[in-house]
Amino acid sequence: MPITPDQAAEIDAQRGETATTLRATAPGMEAHLYRAIPVLDHGFVRVIDYMGDDAAICQAARVSYGRGTRSVQNDEGLIRYLMRHWHSTPFEMCEIKLHVKLPVFVARQWIRHRTANVNEYSARYSVLDREFYIPAPEHLAAQSTLNNQGRGETLDGEAAARVLEILKTDADRAYDHYEEMLGDDGKKGLARELARMNLPANIYTQWYWKTDLHNLFHFLRLRADPHAQYEIRAYAEAIAVAVRDWVPLAYRAFEDYRQGGATLSAGALACLRRMLDGEEVTQETSGLTAREWRELKEVIK
Amino acid sequence: MPITPDQAAEIDAQRGETATTLRATAPGMEAHLYRAIPVLDHGFVRVIDYMGDDAAICQAARVSYGRGTRSVQNDEGLIRYLMRHWHSTPFEMCEIKLHVKLPVFVARQWIRHRTANVNEYSARYSVLDREFYIPAPEHLAAQSTLNNQGRGETLDGEAAARVLEILKTDADRAYDHYEEMLGDDGKKGLARELARMNLPANIYTQWYWKTDLHNLFHFLRLRADPHAQYEIRAYAEAIAVAVRDWVPLAYRAFEDYRQGGATLSAGALACLRRMLDGEEVTQETSGLTAREWRELKEVIK
Amino acid sequence: MPITPDQAAEIDAQRGETATTLRATAPGMEAHLYRAIPVLDHGFVRVIDYMGDDAAICQAARVSYGRGTRSVQNDEGLIRYLMRHWHSTPFEMCEIKLHVKLPVFVARQWIRHRTANVNEYSARYSVLDREFYIPAPEHLAAQSTLNNQGRGETLDGEAAARVLEILKTDADRAYDHYEEMLGDDGKKGLARELARMNLPANIYTQWYWKTDLHNLFHFLRLRADPHAQYEIRAYAEAIAVAVRDWVPLAYRAFEDYRQGGATLSAGALACLRRMLDGEEVTQETSGLTAREWRELKEVIK
Amino acid sequence: MPITPDQAAEIDAQRGETATTLRATAPGMEAHLYRAIPVLDHGFVRVIDYMGDDAAICQAARVSYGRGTRSVQNDEGLIRYLMRHWHSTPFEMCEIKLHVKLPVFVARQWIRHRTANVNEYSARYSVLDREFYIPAPEHLAAQSTLNNQGRGETLDGEAAARVLEILKTDADRAYDHYEEMLGDDGKKGLARELARMNLPANIYTQWYWKTDLHNLFHFLRLRADPHAQYEIRAYAEAIAVAVRDWVPLAYRAFEDYRQGGATLSAGALACLRRMLDGEEVTQETSGLTAREWRELKEVIK
Repeated sequence: MPITPDQAAEIDAQRGETATTLRATAPGMEAHLYRAIPVLDHGFVRVIDYMGDDAAICQAARVSYGRGTRSVQNDEGLIRYLMRHWHSTPFEMCEIKLHVKLPVFVARQWIRHRTANVNEYSARYSVLDREFYIPAPEHLAAQSTLNNQGRGETLDGEAAARVLEILKTDADRAYDHYEEMLGDDGKKGLARELARMNLPANIYTQWYWKTDLHNLFHFLRLRADPHAQYEIRAYAEAIAVAVRDWVPLAYRAFEDYRQGGATLSAGALACLRRMLDGEEVTQETSGLTAREWRELKEVIK
Repeated sequence: MPITPDQAAEIDAQRGETATTLRATAPGMEAHLYRAIPVLDHGFVRVIDYMGDDAAICQAARVSYGRGTRSVQNDEGLIRYLMRHWHSTPFEMCEIKLHVKLPVFVARQWIRHRTANVNEYSARYSVLDREFYIPAPEHLAAQSTLNNQGRGETLDGEAAARVLEILKTDADRAYDHYEEMLGDDGKKGLARELARMNLPANIYTQWYWKTDLHNLFHFLRLRADPHAQYEIRAYAEAIAVAVRDWVPLAYRAFEDYRQGGATLSAGALACLRRMLDGEEVTQETSGLTAREWRELKEVIK
Repeated sequence: MPITPDQAAEIDAQRGETATTLRATAPGMEAHLYRAIPVLDHGFVRVIDYMGDDAAICQAARVSYGRGTRSVQNDEGLIRYLMRHWHSTPFEMCEIKLHVKLPVFVARQWIRHRTANVNEYSARYSVLDREFYIPAPEHLAAQSTLNNQGRGETLDGEAAARVLEILKTDADRAYDHYEEMLGDDGKKGLARELARMNLPANIYTQWYWKTDLHNLFHFLRLRADPHAQYEIRAYAEAIAVAVRDWVPLAYRAFEDYRQGGATLSAGALACLRRMLDGEEVTQETSGLTAREWRELKEVIK
Repeated sequence: MPITPDQAAEIDAQRGETATTLRATAPGMEAHLYRAIPVLDHGFVRVIDYMGDDAAICQAARVSYGRGTRSVQNDEGLIRYLMRHWHSTPFEMCEIKLHVKLPVFVARQWIRHRTANVNEYSARYSVLDREFYIPAPEHLAAQSTLNNQGRGETLDGEAAARVLEILKTDADRAYDHYEEMLGDDGKKGLARELARMNLPANIYTQWYWKTDLHNLFHFLRLRADPHAQYEIRAYAEAIAVAVRDWVPLAYRAFEDYRQGGATLSAGALACLRRMLDGEEVTQETSGLTAREWRELKEVIK
């Protein structure tokens, strides 16, 4: 269970305190605030704070004195224009702060997004909890034979059982030894900054992570994508739900222009034009490599 | 006057709309929201939005589930510790968004702070207003004879009058010509993106500027400093007033450790130790250059 | 003339000093080093230094011990793969340092690219030269009637002559007054940091600008684009020439996937699929707005 | 052993290829290029490339046309001035690229320095080697009783032996299971991106890491510091050796103003002034907290 009763009580207490504000407020996001959206077996995403809403994007784009909203249609048109033409700065005017509990190997991918603020729970300073990510059997997949960094078919029952046994046993033993090295309260155990090195990459860590909407969309485009590793995708998809409720107009534009869109090369566009002129184009006559041709076929179905 | 009656009405309208929120709210900052703090002759700083408060700094440092506050003393101690030991990430968990109207030559200094989000009023897209910064006579200073990038004594009355005459006349003529080049509505005038090149660096521009508290403190340390050019210092000081009301504990720590503090070199520290041991140290025996010695004397007396 | 004889002599002297190095060296770039590529009437771009070459991109992508090159074909395939799938970090492993002389209004657009290192000639510290950008008559265009931030037709002769007269006269007068305010050597003139505010945005400034290849490609995609203002495009095109000689494989991939490519929205892709199936699609039946439809037509024809 | 014979041969081959260049070249750094500086038991730091030298810092600060050097004394004075007054941009004009082999728990601290470019060896794509950091017995320290995130006394022989036994056995077992889960070549094993999660944080990874000299000094100030964890400090100290040979003037200024210097708060400065006036100041009369007082005493010895 990702949240203990004590933690749940703290969260409830925080949701009990309301204040009055003059700031832009997004009702859809208020509903999410502080609540844990469960991810994987022990993880979660919690929205801790946000700044701005759809109107704030337009207000900044227009450098307005007042709220800057004209009409919803007008705002939506502007937001779609900004997204289409890669005008990223107005989207940077919205900000989000999350509390995330996630396995270390996911954290290591996530942190590669550098334009963000991070405060991670410190295993130099504190002792980590005994919580490890153990995949559900349906997520135990074999190495892809097509893609060097992807998954193929699900493991069969016996193979999966053996993997789960390894993961659980090793995690438990590693944690037992971690505790042993730390020592009892009365003894002088190994420094925490050293003892942690025995812990495997599926142990859970936590952080506060804050970024702007433009960089968040970039994160979602890469991580809520079928090519992303399933485990980080699960986090991206949880975040996407909150973002849709926060800035619905911007999110829709993102879906249309980024997630659902595609970038075609000059060579692929040349093929397309020939196809639209009625020519029968094959990989051989396309001027594209086999891989590029396959990717183009996927885009145009 | 920095704000027109129409703009004032828009601001009042925005201050009239309150909402309830579960987010961290800083009453001291709510009082500032949207209001124009006048700076220079036509400029201003307006707080458009903020995220977080003093408690949010501690909450992130502790990676808390709830509000994370223990007591004000406890929080203040933690904030001072974080500031003293350059733990910058918890301060990055607070964010501020400003609307600023400022002369172009100030904007050119300001934009050098790269870790920020900016939306500037576009003179490619829109026509700039006839508003120029004309210094008050007491700010018309001669070039410093000691410091290659500073000001010395104030100009005398006649010299000041001549400078003001030049600045006003040239600004007016440049703007008249800008308008002439743009043409009347019915004529095909020069493109705005070209016509603007005739405008001098004291014309006012505007932008939305958003940054986190750590980077804002860095900005204030450099720009609210006596060595900064007076005109950008005026903006930094206006912002500082709002920051003090927003995060009073963090601001006090900033004043003590950054603004009022000093960094001493290994050589300067060695001198200090000798002085504290009762030795009479002179520049000649200090091992410091004349300039370093002068800077040390300023710090300790 | 952008370069004085003294400056040319300094550049020649620097081109006269060769050294041996074990570093990755790009012969095509060595030929450019230090030389001024003229841009506009008084500006230039000079390559001051570079790090890496095409092979260095692959070496980093493979985290190699040695040079990491396998074969040119192999490297080109990898580079194209990285570009196609937005793997930006290997491109960040190449770095370039430029010395640029450019009008202030161009500098103000350029500086918006934040992920770069900049050292600008300081008008607080030094006196600027009397050099202003005066457009060639064929670049004096009227405001576009279609695009709020673009140019339309070229001004006719009489209108162009009037614009040139204004720009030249105002620049000269502004500079005369700048000098007058600064005072003679013997007099206590206005501080340089104040006097500069009288200078118009077409005066030339200079800076050293350093960035990595990924961010440079982003700059080139936005600024060597037909929608960019002509004056910054002239700089981007000059840089592009040097980049092509530096990293020819990466540049070709950039041309194919970024400059010559296009991003299509989900809606546009849906239209395309219908068209490829033989359906006659019109704007009315496309589900796209008039503007989106026009943009799609431009891409496929 | 950090480097295999094959890798050593690749490195030697690369050191065998010299080229002629017009770029700024630092002989002290050429001697380091590509060579592995051993760190910890299996790690290393290798300098892969560099841009600039001491003169390049001055050249950028002066926005020079030629080399920009006047004299070594003159350059040193300028570099010290820039360092003393936090003018960071000229230092950003030098760049370094490293290949580093390091334990994952060190990599996790290191990556918090966001202003850098990174290409890490991918355990989604490739299989990691069986190499784990096992501390030397003299580095096995107990948790500090004074400092929540530090080390105290070294463990006694028996306790140390037990820790080493745990670390070695658990690492070996985890790796055996990693291999078992991956399966033999002929079998469909678990996807690499999943199998890696069983590996502990003391396994070695590798990356290419590139940053500018200003950010590198910031890294060194924090990580070559006695308060940093020993394991990352070992890397910082290895890098510092190379930097000293690369930019000796800048490095000396860094040692004097950053590493050997100290920042004192307004309160601490007030105490100092009273002491220099001959007053006997105690913690009680100092106005400082016990902790601040202790830190001040350490600075002034």
